[in-house]
Amino acid sequence: MPVLLAPDQAPTLQDLLRDANTAGLDNRLVTESNEPEPRIRGLGSLLLAGPDEISFLSNPRLAGQLAQCRAAAVILTPEAYQPLQGQPVAFRAVLCSQPYLMYALLAQWFDQHRINSLEPGIHPSAVVSADAELAAGVSIGPHCVIEAGVRIGEGTRLGAGCIVGANSVLGRDCLLHARVTLYHGVSVGDRAILHSGCVLGADGFGFAPDPRPNGGWAKIAQLGGVALGDDVEVGANTTIDRGALDDTCIGNGVKLDNQIMVAHNVQIGDHTAIAACVGIAGSTAIGKRCTIGGASMISGHLVLGDDVHVSGGTAITSNVEAPGRYTGVYPYAEHVQWQRNAAVISQLAQLRKRLRALEQPKD
Amino acid sequence: MPVLLAPDQAPTLQDLLRDANTAGLDNRLVTESNEPEPRIRGLGSLLLAGPDEISFLSNPRLAGQLAQCRAAAVILTPEAYQPLQGQPVAFRAVLCSQPYLMYALLAQWFDQHRINSLEPGIHPSAVVSADAELAAGVSIGPHCVIEAGVRIGEGTRLGAGCIVGANSVLGRDCLLHARVTLYHGVSVGDRAILHSGCVLGADGFGFAPDPRPNGGWAKIAQLGGVALGDDVEVGANTTIDRGALDDTCIGNGVKLDNQIMVAHNVQIGDHTAIAACVGIAGSTAIGKRCTIGGASMISGHLVLGDDVHVSGGTAITSNVEAPGRYTGVYPYAEHVQWQRNAAVISQLAQLRKRLRALEQPKD
Amino acid sequence: MPVLLAPDQAPTLQDLLRDANTAGLDNRLVTESNEPEPRIRGLGSLLLAGPDEISFLSNPRLAGQLAQCRAAAVILTPEAYQPLQGQPVAFRAVLCSQPYLMYALLAQWFDQHRINSLEPGIHPSAVVSADAELAAGVSIGPHCVIEAGVRIGEGTRLGAGCIVGANSVLGRDCLLHARVTLYHGVSVGDRAILHSGCVLGADGFGFAPDPRPNGGWAKIAQLGGVALGDDVEVGANTTIDRGALDDTCIGNGVKLDNQIMVAHNVQIGDHTAIAACVGIAGSTAIGKRCTIGGASMISGHLVLGDDVHVSGGTAITSNVEAPGRYTGVYPYAEHVQWQRNAAVISQLAQLRKRLRALEQPKD
Repeated sequence: MPVLLAPDQAPTLQDLLRDANTAGLDNRLVTESNEPEPRIRGLGSLLLAGPDEISFLSNPRLAGQLAQCRAAAVILTPEAYQPLQGQPVAFRAVLCSQPYLMYALLAQWFDQHRINSLEPGIHPSAVVSADAELAAGVSIGPHCVIEAGVRIGEGTRLGAGCIVGANSVLGRDCLLHARVTLYHGVSVGDRAILHSGCVLGADGFGFAPDPRPNGGWAKIAQLGGVALGDDVEVGANTTIDRGALDDTCIGNGVKLDNQIMVAHNVQIGDHTAIAACVGIAGSTAIGKRCTIGGASMISGHLVLGDDVHVSGGTAITSNVEAPGRYTGVYPYAEHVQWQRNAAVISQLAQLRKRLRALEQPKD
Repeated sequence: MPVLLAPDQAPTLQDLLRDANTAGLDNRLVTESNEPEPRIRGLGSLLLAGPDEISFLSNPRLAGQLAQCRAAAVILTPEAYQPLQGQPVAFRAVLCSQPYLMYALLAQWFDQHRINSLEPGIHPSAVVSADAELAAGVSIGPHCVIEAGVRIGEGTRLGAGCIVGANSVLGRDCLLHARVTLYHGVSVGDRAILHSGCVLGADGFGFAPDPRPNGGWAKIAQLGGVALGDDVEVGANTTIDRGALDDTCIGNGVKLDNQIMVAHNVQIGDHTAIAACVGIAGSTAIGKRCTIGGASMISGHLVLGDDVHVSGGTAITSNVEAPGRYTGVYPYAEHVQWQRNAAVISQLAQLRKRLRALEQPKD
Repeated sequence: MPVLLAPDQAPTLQDLLRDANTAGLDNRLVTESNEPEPRIRGLGSLLLAGPDEISFLSNPRLAGQLAQCRAAAVILTPEAYQPLQGQPVAFRAVLCSQPYLMYALLAQWFDQHRINSLEPGIHPSAVVSADAELAAGVSIGPHCVIEAGVRIGEGTRLGAGCIVGANSVLGRDCLLHARVTLYHGVSVGDRAILHSGCVLGADGFGFAPDPRPNGGWAKIAQLGGVALGDDVEVGANTTIDRGALDDTCIGNGVKLDNQIMVAHNVQIGDHTAIAACVGIAGSTAIGKRCTIGGASMISGHLVLGDDVHVSGGTAITSNVEAPGRYTGVYPYAEHVQWQRNAAVISQLAQLRKRLRALEQPKD
């Protein structure tokens, strides 16, 4: 359950809408009331928001929940508000053409309020190299380690136990949650959000077969770096490997969920979003504004164009040039039925042959 | 190889059986002997256990190993013991109707012995907020960070480098191995076992498309929490994201293996067990007593009923109501053979059409 | 972009070739020049290497890039050099029968130069048990924790925040990057490279169903260990679980990429290489010199022989005895086309039946 602001910290509805609406969205409070303007202590879903909270209606299918909604205010479109006019509702209506985006901004405002309450400054248990450059307003949590040559931009906060390797760079207003690891030579733009357990800059997986007897594999030391653009989010336990010689590059506005593996020398274009558990093999380039569904795997040395959308669980094994949606996950079934069908998969080529034979005219 | 207890710490066979058998299982020592009762220093498999160790026979196919077994004692069913009567065997037989469960209890006893020998108390290098409440007998390892408002129940132990975010709660008798991360607002019940690298409470993956030019994705800050019931185990590097507005909920007795991804607002019912590398997308609800095989993926916003069993590698992409086993992993083959069959997959619809054409009566 | 050595630290070309070539590869500088021998500050790809850097040509398809190459020197085979003779090129040619392996050695040399510049010694913030044995030349980074009974071999380096559990052993000349976690009783050979976030020795996933009412799952405490041979590399956020009673065993020269899951009692043979996101279920034994492609999954209790090569994304669900390549990933397609074909998968058994019916002679 979201923590509620203490009553004396809660903004009035109007103040909240003004302060949270950093995108300049249209919004209009339509419900007339003689009661004093409510103070908003939190944000909740239509059915769970209490009388100190604000809610929103974005999915038209949930409109039926409005009748029971006990929230102080609800954000909704003029169209969704239409049927309510004249009806007695418990909440004040705030009309906005984009209630889902407004919800995002309100949620950001409440979370920022929590973040602002964190203690600033450099914790005495942190080990910060004398040779690191920390801009004004940088916060470093307990047990962090900042190595030589690191530069960290204004307003960036590091949670407990983060490690920033030698000569790495963090832009301004980044938020590193606890236990983020950057190897040496990793560069991160402004306003990044990096989650716990993510690892940026581990070695790419490169080996040369050593033909000498019992030679095994000779390591190809990975000398490239990792470069993230601005406004990138990286999920928990996601790994982005450093390049072999050149950098692994993540564009502006890229959003990566948890437990994603980005191999060496991959390039990901601006505003591409990738769901959890995806693996992207080495040197593949993904375009701009793509979405990749969870648990997909993308082979190495491929090119995916802009606006390519990959369904969850799909294996992409060749270049994808045209924008569009691509899928390759095969149906599950009750086990016994699956067994019958799966057995035929191993006979498909033969089946096609038999079909061809039948198609031949007989004389 | 399991570490053996020092001889002076090893219990006698009878004491061990009494102390370990917290479930009150039936057990009876049948072998007569004039020798003094052995002291049991460890637990091993039938072929590897030495004369200071206890072993067990659970899988009837391994009965042939009994003849060579050098263990001091073996747990087995009366039925498995039957053919041995009158035979010369090196071990003392302990008859028990559930030898596998007895083995589990014995293994717990030996491991608990090791855990009890860990140094108790709060390590001086730990950073513990003055505002945290630690019950009696709580142990906090080196370099842990316990933030403000945290409450930790009696007897709970934290290994080195754990981080517990603001206002999170741990029940009693939990065991956190080294380097567990809890964000703020995470609640864990009693007797949890959390493994290294797991992350509870990272942000769910939520974004609103921002329609402004170059707007990209507006983050939906995740204001919900994570709530774990009692007796939950979470494997190494598994991630459980916090809910968007409400909590992500894990029931009592749920067992999660390593590298599992549980997305925001997922619900998992009591006593469900999930093997490694599974991904569960947002808002999906899984019932009670389910088992999910390794590397499965489950799409978002689905409902899986109670007693649903998913085979490893299966993609579940729709609701599953009826109890039963469900499978969707397709056969591998020698590469050239696979190539022939895989090519036909892309022609299946056409093949069906051709088959229909042949089935039409010709005149 | 790789960091360049400072000019006064850069070796001459001849010195570099001599020092880096630890494998004794053939190499011959053929270009005559009156200019003083260049100093080599770094290593780059053919198109990006600058006049202070060395490059290499391994893939014959890139030979066309030689004309534009501005590097001080290029490693290439005599065959690749042949067509250049008499042509004006900017670089000095170094002929070597194995340019890719020579590149690997050069990259190792430059990376080792960086590693050697790290501060040696035991950081004062590290917590090292009085009962641990550290050989000469061991380096322990900030905020590391070394528990009782640990032994660490000569020249081994631990990055910041590593945790080595009680009685674990690290060989000599190992490199642990930041934030590596070893549980108790884990043994690692010489020259290991362990990446951030990897976890060695977490509990295997073992439970006995507890038949008592509401019993759920009884934990089988995992008493075995993890044993790694020499020259093993383990990628970021990879997990290798401890054995139930005996050890999980990783052979010499095994290379594991990121986010791999190795379950309890798995055995991996010498020089096998496994790409990212692979899951290997419990008790499976993989042979020597195998390669396993990314995102494959291998079921439990299987045996894979030596020299087995598994393509990416393949589910191995039965024993594989013969050497060779095995594949089981099915084709993706544009979404609508996929839909048509995927629907037929659920009817395959029926389709085969209909085909058989047509094949019956009609009379």
